[in-house]
Amino acid sequence: MRRDRSDETRVALLSAAERLFAERGLDAVSNRQISEAAGQANNYAVGYHFGSRTDLLTALLESHQEPLDVIRARTVDEIGDEPELRDWLRCLVRPQLEYIGTRPGLCYFGQFWLAMATAPSAAELLYREAAKSQPLVTTLNGMYGSLPALPEEAIRVRNLMSQNSLIATYADFERRRNELGASDSSSWQGFSDSMVDGLLGLWLAPASSDRV
Amino acid sequence: MRRDRSDETRVALLSAAERLFAERGLDAVSNRQISEAAGQANNYAVGYHFGSRTDLLTALLESHQEPLDVIRARTVDEIGDEPELRDWLRCLVRPQLEYIGTRPGLCYFGQFWLAMATAPSAAELLYREAAKSQPLVTTLNGMYGSLPALPEEAIRVRNLMSQNSLIATYADFERRRNELGASDSSSWQGFSDSMVDGLLGLWLAPASSDRV
Repeated sequence: MRRDRSDETRVALLSAAERLFAERGLDAVSNRQISEAAGQANNYAVGYHFGSRTDLLTALLESHQEPLDVIRARTVDEIGDEPELRDWLRCLVRPQLEYIGTRPGLCYFGQFWLAMATAPSAAELLYREAAKSQPLVTTLNGMYGSLPALPEEAIRVRNLMSQNSLIATYADFERRRNELGASDSSSWQGFSDSMVDGLLGLWLAPASSDRV
Repeated sequence: MRRDRSDETRVALLSAAERLFAERGLDAVSNRQISEAAGQANNYAVGYHFGSRTDLLTALLESHQEPLDVIRARTVDEIGDEPELRDWLRCLVRPQLEYIGTRPGLCYFGQFWLAMATAPSAAELLYREAAKSQPLVTTLNGMYGSLPALPEEAIRVRNLMSQNSLIATYADFERRRNELGASDSSSWQGFSDSMVDGLLGLWLAPASSDRV
């Protein structure tokens, strides 16, 4: 009985933390505000249940990692024997949008990811946790192995542009989905196709230095 | 004499604020920390010289707007009589990189812009100030008028991807420039060309829905 109530409290704290981080950014939210938003009378509930801020962020990331990896693994399994760059980009982009697009009710996962990616103190933790995903590692290896021949500088700059746009654009999709309501949940497939088209163009474009 | 010292204090406070915002994010920095970093004994120096946090951010943005607009206007003037999408994308990207790439010493402007763009409370202010730039408005009109025919959804998604990548990628360039030292200052032209190539590819890529 006690155990159950403790688990419920943890879930309520994670959910409140995710929403507050998503809406205000990591550094604008105190543990006390999270406890209050989760309906906890005890202002130290976050510390008691999770320990440090890093522990809380890690627990939040881990709560999504398993269901996300199920989708990632299925998406990788679906590609054929001779995958091209477009197929790997689909594996890179689609799982996050499917995860956000098929969750019931309001979703804050994408905006939370963005809050982590843009907080100088937390971005490294986000990427370290993501690197533990085997299907994501497979996807990135496949993608980098399928890039066209480009000057090193072009690859470096386009990689930055791609990384900088992905998480923020998942968050844009999520915000719009929350505004439009769950009735729009099927649109994640079209959004994913559009993102893959744009990314494919970004990577396949010739480099100016080739033309000089 | 008094006036001069007050101006010096303002400049010192702006410089300290920009660097702290760039390194830690807006919400992780207090006015007291800014005053201390600027060597002000008075903890209320920021409030005294600038008023509210919004006033401080506006003063910071305005301190860059004029020199940046000189570069933007020159870049727009340089394009020929029949500009294509690539020319407008060059006008969009290059001025920020030239501004960062040609400043003496360490630069925090790009990272400060990113901190504003990613703070839910400040992004609107950033875009409102940017919209006051006449050459930037000319550039955006030229760019949108030169896009290929694409489904509405494709334009919307690619626009998000482009916006999400630009400011963050300027910040990446600036961080790297600061690390490598000013000796690398000429590299902004190559970085700009690479960004324009990638953006052009993103916009010119065919849309999947056309092929179905």
